[in-house]
Amino acid sequence: MDSAAPPPPYPPSDLTVPTRLRERASYDRAVVHGILDDGYVCHLGFVRDGRPVVLPTLYARSGERLYVHGSTGSRPLRGASAGLAVCLTVTHVDGLVLARSAFHHSLNYRSVVVHGTARQVTDPAEKSAALDAIVEQVVPGRAADSRRANSRELAATAVLRLDLAEVSAKIRTGGPSDEPEDAALPYWTGVVPVTRGHGQPLPADDLDPAVALPGYLTADRPAPGAPHGAA
Amino acid sequence: MDSAAPPPPYPPSDLTVPTRLRERASYDRAVVHGILDDGYVCHLGFVRDGRPVVLPTLYARSGERLYVHGSTGSRPLRGASAGLAVCLTVTHVDGLVLARSAFHHSLNYRSVVVHGTARQVTDPAEKSAALDAIVEQVVPGRAADSRRANSRELAATAVLRLDLAEVSAKIRTGGPSDEPEDAALPYWTGVVPVTRGHGQPLPADDLDPAVALPGYLTADRPAPGAPHGAA
Repeated sequence: MDSAAPPPPYPPSDLTVPTRLRERASYDRAVVHGILDDGYVCHLGFVRDGRPVVLPTLYARSGERLYVHGSTGSRPLRGASAGLAVCLTVTHVDGLVLARSAFHHSLNYRSVVVHGTARQVTDPAEKSAALDAIVEQVVPGRAADSRRANSRELAATAVLRLDLAEVSAKIRTGGPSDEPEDAALPYWTGVVPVTRGHGQPLPADDLDPAVALPGYLTADRPAPGAPHGAA
Repeated sequence: MDSAAPPPPYPPSDLTVPTRLRERASYDRAVVHGILDDGYVCHLGFVRDGRPVVLPTLYARSGERLYVHGSTGSRPLRGASAGLAVCLTVTHVDGLVLARSAFHHSLNYRSVVVHGTARQVTDPAEKSAALDAIVEQVVPGRAADSRRANSRELAATAVLRLDLAEVSAKIRTGGPSDEPEDAALPYWTGVVPVTRGHGQPLPADDLDPAVALPGYLTADRPAPGAPHGAA
C-alpha cells in the first residue's frame, strides 16, 4: 500500500497563469511529466540582443530536471555558462476540432511551457548521464546499444540544465463547442484525430546484414506525441 | 514556356545565418514556402519584461505574409498594435537517425525560422481573409463549409501579420554519418521514419446524421508535416 501523498503541484506564477482559458491550465506534476515524456523535440526560446529567438532542439526529462544539448559553438549555449533565461515549450497536437462556426474551430492539444534559467552542466558524470537521457528520450533502449561519447566528443558537446519550477501545462480535449443557435447549420462537425507513428526502420547502406534489428525498434513502442495508453 | 526568373532567395542576415552546420541552411523561397505549407502549428516567441516566452499557435501563409491569430485579450496580441518583435518557428520531424555512436545520433527534420515585427491587422477585409486562410491551412476546403465569423466574433479576435523577409530554413535528410573507425561496431544503424496522419473523423454527438462527411475529409489529403509528394 502506498500511503505517500502525491507531490504538490507546481506553484502558479505571473509567468505561468494564462490571462484567458484558465480552465485549460494544469500545474499537476504527473500531467506535466506525462506531456514531457511523450515527446523529445522542444522549442527553446531565449533573448539575443533584445530580440526573441526560438529554435527546435532535443530534450530529455530526468526527474525535475530537463536537459538540452548542442554544440559548444552554438550561440545560445555559449552564453549559458552564466545562466540563460529561457522558455522551453513542448506541444503535441492530438486532433482537429471542426465546429460549425469558423470562430469555434480549435485544436485538441497538450503543451507544457517551462520558464527558467538554463545553466551549463559542468559535472562530467551529470553531463554523460544527460546525454544518455537524451538518446533514451528519443529511442528507449538505444543508449546502451550504441558507442558512448568519447572525451573529444564530450568536450564538443554542451549540455544545459533547466529545473522544473515555473511550469504549466495546457490541454484541450473533446469535441467542438458551437453556439446553440448554430446547431441546425448544415455543416459537418466533429474531431479529426491527428496520429503520429513510426515507419519501417531503414538500415544504413553500410550496415552489416548480420546485425539484426534490435528489439527496441521492433516492439510496439509508443509513437512520439501519442498520449500514454493510446493505440 | 515560362521564361520568368525564379524569385530571389531571402537575403541572409546576422539573425538567419547559423554559426554552425551552415550546409543545412536554405534561403530558397520555394523551400521555405513548402515547409510552411506542410504545417499549421508554429511556436511564436516574443519578449515580455525582458524574458523570452514561446507559445504554440496556429498560423497561415499567404504569399510572403504569415498570419497568426488569438484572443484580443491575450498578452502578446495586446502588445502588438505598435509592433511586436517575434521569432516564429515551424518544425517537422521526419526521421530518427540512429548512428553507431551516440554522438552522431540526429534527427531528419525541416524547420523554418522567421524573425520580424508582427503587427495587428486592422483592415477588415485583410483580417477576414487571414482568418479564412488559417482555417484553410489546417483543413483545406473547410473555410467555405463553415459559418464565417460575425462582427462580434471578429471584434474578439486579433490577427497579427508577419512579413517573410528575415527567414531561413534548415533541413537534414539522409542516413547516419558515423566515424570511419566505428564502421565495424555491432550496433544497428539507419533511420526510423516518423509518420504523421489523420484518423477516422469522429462526428460530434449532436451532428445531424443527414450531414455527410465532406469530401475534403475523405480525400487522400496530405498529412500535416508530411513532405509534399510523400506517401
